[in-house]
Amino acid sequence: MASNTWGKHFRLTTFGESHGPAIGGVIDGCPSNFVIDTNAIQHQLNRRRPNQNDWVTPRNEADEVEFLSGIFEGKTTGSPIGFVIKNNDQHSKDYDQIKEAYRPGHADYVYEAKYGHRDHRGGGRSSARETACRVVAGEIARQILAAHSIQARAYVSSIKDCWIPKNHAFLDLTKIDSSPVRCPDENTSNRMIQLIAQAKENQDSLGGIITCVIENVPVGWGSPIYEKLNAQLAHGVFSLNAVKGFEMGDGFSSTLKWGSQNNDAVMGGSNNDGGITGGISNGKDIWFKVAFKPTSSIGKSQQTINSKQEKIEISLEGRHDPCVVIRAVPIIEAIAYFTLLNSYFENKIESI
Amino acid sequence: MASNTWGKHFRLTTFGESHGPAIGGVIDGCPSNFVIDTNAIQHQLNRRRPNQNDWVTPRNEADEVEFLSGIFEGKTTGSPIGFVIKNNDQHSKDYDQIKEAYRPGHADYVYEAKYGHRDHRGGGRSSARETACRVVAGEIARQILAAHSIQARAYVSSIKDCWIPKNHAFLDLTKIDSSPVRCPDENTSNRMIQLIAQAKENQDSLGGIITCVIENVPVGWGSPIYEKLNAQLAHGVFSLNAVKGFEMGDGFSSTLKWGSQNNDAVMGGSNNDGGITGGISNGKDIWFKVAFKPTSSIGKSQQTINSKQEKIEISLEGRHDPCVVIRAVPIIEAIAYFTLLNSYFENKIESI
Amino acid sequence: MASNTWGKHFRLTTFGESHGPAIGGVIDGCPSNFVIDTNAIQHQLNRRRPNQNDWVTPRNEADEVEFLSGIFEGKTTGSPIGFVIKNNDQHSKDYDQIKEAYRPGHADYVYEAKYGHRDHRGGGRSSARETACRVVAGEIARQILAAHSIQARAYVSSIKDCWIPKNHAFLDLTKIDSSPVRCPDENTSNRMIQLIAQAKENQDSLGGIITCVIENVPVGWGSPIYEKLNAQLAHGVFSLNAVKGFEMGDGFSSTLKWGSQNNDAVMGGSNNDGGITGGISNGKDIWFKVAFKPTSSIGKSQQTINSKQEKIEISLEGRHDPCVVIRAVPIIEAIAYFTLLNSYFENKIESI
Amino acid sequence: MASNTWGKHFRLTTFGESHGPAIGGVIDGCPSNFVIDTNAIQHQLNRRRPNQNDWVTPRNEADEVEFLSGIFEGKTTGSPIGFVIKNNDQHSKDYDQIKEAYRPGHADYVYEAKYGHRDHRGGGRSSARETACRVVAGEIARQILAAHSIQARAYVSSIKDCWIPKNHAFLDLTKIDSSPVRCPDENTSNRMIQLIAQAKENQDSLGGIITCVIENVPVGWGSPIYEKLNAQLAHGVFSLNAVKGFEMGDGFSSTLKWGSQNNDAVMGGSNNDGGITGGISNGKDIWFKVAFKPTSSIGKSQQTINSKQEKIEISLEGRHDPCVVIRAVPIIEAIAYFTLLNSYFENKIESI
Repeated sequence: MASNTWGKHFRLTTFGESHGPAIGGVIDGCPSNFVIDTNAIQHQLNRRRPNQNDWVTPRNEADEVEFLSGIFEGKTTGSPIGFVIKNNDQHSKDYDQIKEAYRPGHADYVYEAKYGHRDHRGGGRSSARETACRVVAGEIARQILAAHSIQARAYVSSIKDCWIPKNHAFLDLTKIDSSPVRCPDENTSNRMIQLIAQAKENQDSLGGIITCVIENVPVGWGSPIYEKLNAQLAHGVFSLNAVKGFEMGDGFSSTLKWGSQNNDAVMGGSNNDGGITGGISNGKDIWFKVAFKPTSSIGKSQQTINSKQEKIEISLEGRHDPCVVIRAVPIIEAIAYFTLLNSYFENKIESI
Repeated sequence: MASNTWGKHFRLTTFGESHGPAIGGVIDGCPSNFVIDTNAIQHQLNRRRPNQNDWVTPRNEADEVEFLSGIFEGKTTGSPIGFVIKNNDQHSKDYDQIKEAYRPGHADYVYEAKYGHRDHRGGGRSSARETACRVVAGEIARQILAAHSIQARAYVSSIKDCWIPKNHAFLDLTKIDSSPVRCPDENTSNRMIQLIAQAKENQDSLGGIITCVIENVPVGWGSPIYEKLNAQLAHGVFSLNAVKGFEMGDGFSSTLKWGSQNNDAVMGGSNNDGGITGGISNGKDIWFKVAFKPTSSIGKSQQTINSKQEKIEISLEGRHDPCVVIRAVPIIEAIAYFTLLNSYFENKIESI
Repeated sequence: MASNTWGKHFRLTTFGESHGPAIGGVIDGCPSNFVIDTNAIQHQLNRRRPNQNDWVTPRNEADEVEFLSGIFEGKTTGSPIGFVIKNNDQHSKDYDQIKEAYRPGHADYVYEAKYGHRDHRGGGRSSARETACRVVAGEIARQILAAHSIQARAYVSSIKDCWIPKNHAFLDLTKIDSSPVRCPDENTSNRMIQLIAQAKENQDSLGGIITCVIENVPVGWGSPIYEKLNAQLAHGVFSLNAVKGFEMGDGFSSTLKWGSQNNDAVMGGSNNDGGITGGISNGKDIWFKVAFKPTSSIGKSQQTINSKQEKIEISLEGRHDPCVVIRAVPIIEAIAYFTLLNSYFENKIESI
Repeated sequence: MASNTWGKHFRLTTFGESHGPAIGGVIDGCPSNFVIDTNAIQHQLNRRRPNQNDWVTPRNEADEVEFLSGIFEGKTTGSPIGFVIKNNDQHSKDYDQIKEAYRPGHADYVYEAKYGHRDHRGGGRSSARETACRVVAGEIARQILAAHSIQARAYVSSIKDCWIPKNHAFLDLTKIDSSPVRCPDENTSNRMIQLIAQAKENQDSLGGIITCVIENVPVGWGSPIYEKLNAQLAHGVFSLNAVKGFEMGDGFSSTLKWGSQNNDAVMGGSNNDGGITGGISNGKDIWFKVAFKPTSSIGKSQQTINSKQEKIEISLEGRHDPCVVIRAVPIIEAIAYFTLLNSYFENKIESI
């Protein structure tokens, strides 16, 4: 149950199940007197939206956000911003088959074991539908940080064994959204689409890696010890379903080098550390990678168990993403902006 | 400055610099009436201690912990446990060279930029010396969790390009401490030692990977959404200096498979997810990997800048670990136990 | 802006302005598998409701709560409970006069100074309308605590200089709601009604005192030092508008006695301390008093200033309570239950 | 056990029992680059110190604070400030009589019931000795706030039925420390001393009221709803042992007036509200009153029970304050400064 609140200063508290009447949240700690661009929020929700193209789930949700408080005459008041996003296209009947069965790779079983009572429809609270609320808060954070020129851009750097053969510094990141799979390298993008088509045909699914690059964060954001900026980012991305790995900068590859090869210069030069030293931004671009496992929900027949612990076979109905990384791109950006806005506030009170 | 407190229910607040009079902390939320085994705490501190063998820094600290409160007649009282560990073998003079210079790969520059005032001696608060306090708290957590048969074991699975060619399930984890580099595979351990000897000779350093396996965590620990158990673990390990990557279970490798290959059975069978589903323990072993970059402090000459932003050359004096993973093993275990004890408490109030 | 979240384990996050589309909140940390009695929630909202009789404001709000999540098939799921209460009877035009003027005794001026932008309609976020959300959460807390036989009963013990000449132990607390002013002593109740009638006639207002008595709290709830149970109760009641004083047990009167007169026996006997010793419940009834100043909003003409700091005269339109204590009774009970449920959870993890 | 941490931004975590080796704490969130006046800290500790004159307990503690971290070359570094205050003059033998007995009005019984294990010596953690740590943190807060001209002054306004017959505005607050009982009105001070002498002679004790006045807090500090500035102050003072009542401004007296009499002008004029409106400072002086019950520890014989719940008679040995308000004056000021510094930080991030 706890905790459905995220953030220390700029805080998001969310509620809502996949097939309930609505999901929504409360944003607390938003500066007052700020003109919110609600169209830009809807634009981000559209990037995360189901049914946006052939490569994502066909569940047809408009994902229109309705604000209930905290904004007056177009500007924030400093009061909490309450909002709801209605659920319109639930096909709860599709989920009758899992009322008594546990899907492999899903949270059905652990929820049942922990809570003893489970809203099985669409996965209930465990559905990634909750992330729409993060996109709302993340976009507001982006708008506030824009005054500091901070920009976070995420893209799909690999799907299964198909990856972009170049580092982010050699890519044109303005092309991310030109690709239906949000891969800025056209060649790789085309190959990824073929892989997804194959997965759909086989009623199977795929995983992949998202790379995120954040520009213009000044030196000094983040905190030493338990609230290192990288620790906050790791926490944020691992609070998403299906995330299995996180790397700051060179990540696991850095273990293969001698210290004399790996050490970055204090200013300029290489950026193996990914823009954070000792938990604090060092003025270089912040960059990290996130690994998502293949979507657990597949149509292909699988062995599993039911609530009586009997072995059964299951072929999942319902509408699913063959590969979650496409829609996860705006979510990763939201997590980056949300985390950075908190660091910005923290830095205002903890630095000289 | 903030935040030097870790944990929600079982909480550790720490203080202290590498070359100040002492480091220490306050443990709040420890159950009362519990008989603490202080020898076992000292044993864990000895595993983390500098100067324990030829492959770690020769700084000679006994790391004896002195308890100031919270324990009466050998048992906890429910009051906060205050403790100090004195610093005895500081060679602060070794650090005069960095009073005005910033070491590559270190936090010197970001602390200076953020705080405007810096205790440069031994890195001050940014030194990993702080982790001794985590070992104290982690060992108390271990003792409390022992009643539930929970056991976390970490080991060095790779140093540079030398790694154990087997999964943890095929290793004898009782042999970890028989190896001076905490690698339970004897052959690999010997090759790692050779690599470290080479690094020492070259006044260079090495990175590596630690694998951690946790047995007997029951189903249902951890929380959905923002406090997923994996998110808490990721936060914990990324709050350590030099950590650059984290993987739950199969991690990045899981992105290479089809969903039908990767999906774990609900009970038994494969454990690609690493024992956590939807942020909640699923009853299987929890396992994860942590990547540490090569130690930033090397004796080898490096280019850097001073506080006037002039280019200078620096050859670090002071005593350093050629490879931090050896001493990091008990720290990773401490983080695992500390996080799990918090999950245990949370589960007591959030589950049915 | 911060903080609109209350409670450590059982947590309420609220949003909403007096004249916006709705107020609402998110309850996090509610145990799963619990059958919620929604009629009883509505009953409490009706006790707090405007327009319930002649002695409260005529603003006509049904205050119907709509649950959006966290309840499935009548039972809680352990997921956050989102809810909204629509605003239906705003007369925002009545507040045009304060768009540029600051009401004496109100938060208009401090909001303007702090946030630079203000939703003046009905006081915006500063309106006590927010307390309806506390009543929702408090009633759920009451239902959970009912299994432990815990019962909190608040009543109006004084209005202006008219007070009940008896201690709570000598009153029949089942009669509280028989009185339109929630005073269980009939004689005093009648005199209070006369005072309110007089205030209404003079377009003036009144303050008063609420006494709250909590039965059956076991020994050991609450924490030493910074989270004493009495400190949490004091915090809770002082987070209500118009509260000016709080007394545990004998309160200020205890300063008039010698220690030998004031000391309560450990068990039984007197209860000057109000049921809490050293911040922890001692097994006796918990009792406390809360002073509310006279309602700031009065029709009577007053001198004040506008946003240009010019002196003006103001006669408030809008619909107001001549005396807030009547409707505050269920709010004080909600605060008591909410605080105690948190203590119950805390005690589960901090006691032996 | 939880919670021994106080404050959101400027945070104090404390430990230590009355008769253990030391008490101490960790201050987190202190701005860097600030020159700390340690003599001024010792001066405040001396004001709180036992044995400072004939009217307080003769326990002879120097209360010298030793800083272990966070200060380098006389200036704060932004790292946590760890400190200890050694216990030197414990007479633990005096407390053998309460090893198995519960003192009336004390926390002995509730600690035993809650924790099942109790450090009975001097009351252990329940002793007010812990407040010395608050004085350390409060004085640092005062030094930081001094740049904003903020000044909090507390004084003893009554002891038993002997009170100053004037409002704080008519007193010379520079004379507080000229009085051995910290009452700035000489006549009243003398009468109070006589009362204390009488209490000592009778081995009895006294309660009293402290008034605190805070000057120069700008408009806009504090938060609406759950973290109102008055709620934070109420929480802070009620976290002290023996506190039984709290009033903001006119407090309970405000209930005796009509609204038209009680309403303060927005600027200037009366200050019945005590300087806070809607939870936010309004630019007038903040003032409040705190009631302390008579000291529970008295030499006079009392009836009580032991751990077998047998009735016994007890005459307390040990050294006690006949009236705690004298030494509580610097503690109340510390709470005021500590709370205000947190409001100052909060305001930096929540206001425009």
